[in-house]
Amino acid sequence: MAISVIDKIKKFWPFGQVKMTAIGVDQFLPSQDARAFTAKVIARPSATSRDLLIKVLASAINPVDIKMRESYKNNGEFRVFGFDAVGEVISKGSQVTDFQVGDKVFYAGAQMRQGSNAEYQLVDERLVALAPQTLRDEEIAAMPLTSITASEILGDAMGYQIDSNSAQGHTIFIVNGAGGVGSTLIQLAKYMGMVVITTASRPESVAWVKSLGADYILDYHQDLQVQLTKIGHDQVDNIAILQNTNAYWSLVLQTIKPFGHIVSIVETTAPIDMAPLKNRGVQFSWVFMFAKANYGIAMETQGQALSKISQLLEEGKIKSTLTKTYHGLTAENIRQATQDVESGRMIGKVVVRHNEEI
Amino acid sequence: MAISVIDKIKKFWPFGQVKMTAIGVDQFLPSQDARAFTAKVIARPSATSRDLLIKVLASAINPVDIKMRESYKNNGEFRVFGFDAVGEVISKGSQVTDFQVGDKVFYAGAQMRQGSNAEYQLVDERLVALAPQTLRDEEIAAMPLTSITASEILGDAMGYQIDSNSAQGHTIFIVNGAGGVGSTLIQLAKYMGMVVITTASRPESVAWVKSLGADYILDYHQDLQVQLTKIGHDQVDNIAILQNTNAYWSLVLQTIKPFGHIVSIVETTAPIDMAPLKNRGVQFSWVFMFAKANYGIAMETQGQALSKISQLLEEGKIKSTLTKTYHGLTAENIRQATQDVESGRMIGKVVVRHNEEI
Repeated sequence: MAISVIDKIKKFWPFGQVKMTAIGVDQFLPSQDARAFTAKVIARPSATSRDLLIKVLASAINPVDIKMRESYKNNGEFRVFGFDAVGEVISKGSQVTDFQVGDKVFYAGAQMRQGSNAEYQLVDERLVALAPQTLRDEEIAAMPLTSITASEILGDAMGYQIDSNSAQGHTIFIVNGAGGVGSTLIQLAKYMGMVVITTASRPESVAWVKSLGADYILDYHQDLQVQLTKIGHDQVDNIAILQNTNAYWSLVLQTIKPFGHIVSIVETTAPIDMAPLKNRGVQFSWVFMFAKANYGIAMETQGQALSKISQLLEEGKIKSTLTKTYHGLTAENIRQATQDVESGRMIGKVVVRHNEEI
Repeated sequence: MAISVIDKIKKFWPFGQVKMTAIGVDQFLPSQDARAFTAKVIARPSATSRDLLIKVLASAINPVDIKMRESYKNNGEFRVFGFDAVGEVISKGSQVTDFQVGDKVFYAGAQMRQGSNAEYQLVDERLVALAPQTLRDEEIAAMPLTSITASEILGDAMGYQIDSNSAQGHTIFIVNGAGGVGSTLIQLAKYMGMVVITTASRPESVAWVKSLGADYILDYHQDLQVQLTKIGHDQVDNIAILQNTNAYWSLVLQTIKPFGHIVSIVETTAPIDMAPLKNRGVQFSWVFMFAKANYGIAMETQGQALSKISQLLEEGKIKSTLTKTYHGLTAENIRQATQDVESGRMIGKVVVRHNEEI
């Protein structure tokens, strides 16, 4: 849906006040409804303090966008989603130290601020890194949210350094390897020298996780414990749960080694039994990548994580997980990309390029 | 109960085979039963491989002794408990590298081997450190199990270095500070510069945890959240649960800060709700100090932890948590000390000295 003539006029009025187009919602409608998203012309924000004002070149849709839209309070506030972007620094706040106007950067940003499905966006410089120079915009925009999450799973929660062969021979079992986080996590774990076991079922998912380097691909429609035993890994050092924590919990209890690390990014829907893990000294961690920005804690670690990812992408040590691109920042494209993610059948990432004429 | 005349004779027969006295069980009887423990003369073991043969000078009773005795299978095997000791190295296996005959050492040992309630005992050198030179035997024997546990809570699970002021200003809430582990944990946390909040109710418990350095002492018979708010710490960085994990869980959910660490040493008796911790990125760890020896993983870290404890005790940075001593390795003394621990009202630690005439 293109923006209306009235909105186009508003964009240049009143003169002097800079406007921009943003795609968002001011009421919750299911994504099947053509009006699920709206293009609006709103005031372009100004950068102060440690903020960068970014001209967004491309943004990605993630499951968190779906979740946030579903819990949108119909309070009339125009809410812009999109928490994954590449863009160019247009201006900066007075306390910015690490970036210059004209820098091309990538970032996931902060959940409580307006997102990247807009021409321009503010983001705290601590959450940002220089974008890899060798990739196309849509390839870059696919990466920040999932690679920060994967870095926090492997680093903050499992305690590894993310370096070449830093976890040589250690095993990781990734529940749902083909999604956004899984696709990046497989690659980082392989880069670190790990044995990577993951789940996938559809032939295209199996082919995808194989192309990312997974050593063993198990079918989650069959008994997973039996398959793990068959490949000689009935016990693993690390488990990353990227889908339905409760459904996989009994497998986790059987499978995790003494002093192993269990990490989940998917909220439990019922209490879980921790007792069988006690005598194995096991650790369970939640990773939620927005927590650092939400609470203002260790935000600079996300910029640092992205710098490492940028380097690995440039060196070809990992590759972009982009699988689908829409062209143009329109309400319709955001709606289509949202439906792709909602289907639950998405492999890799879907991105909307902004720099097409809309 | 002294050993029988027949056992005294067996001790020297057949000639050439060295015997020793050990206190243990060959059937489960409640500790109220005078026959709950038996003194037996059995063969003295020999040190091979990385084992040290120790002449035990004093040993302590811990809750784990109670738990293991209660789950003793009445299979006729004579089982010796006691997992906390000071003693002298009498001989050593051919692969021992770190200790000499004559060294005075302390250790908790390994759960699957015979315990310290015996004249002699084998222990893997990796679990052992030189005993502090400035303390009495019973003061030393009180320390290993609880200080290894406290070190693993603060180090392995919460991720701190155990050094002077290494956690300056961080808060720790210790559920049940007056017991064995709590009494050591309070002191180590204070040494590391933490703000220590703990629970105690009886006047003698309150006085005890105060003497160990606790900054705030809350009454667990009153609303703990209200008390935490009152002292200005309604949220804390770290929580160590040393009693009834399930009973304190709802408080934990309210109280732990974003990226906080929750550690428990007490097995849950029902599933626990983890969902409210997800968006705070919280970590939950089990600490079970026998897991390293049980699985043969990182055993040397326990010797290292005890070396640090030995140094801190010698320097007076922490003090022994001994509160009660029995004199003589007898079945009756072990039974009495067991009853002390079973009462649930024990403050600090109870130790049995062995080097009295029996």
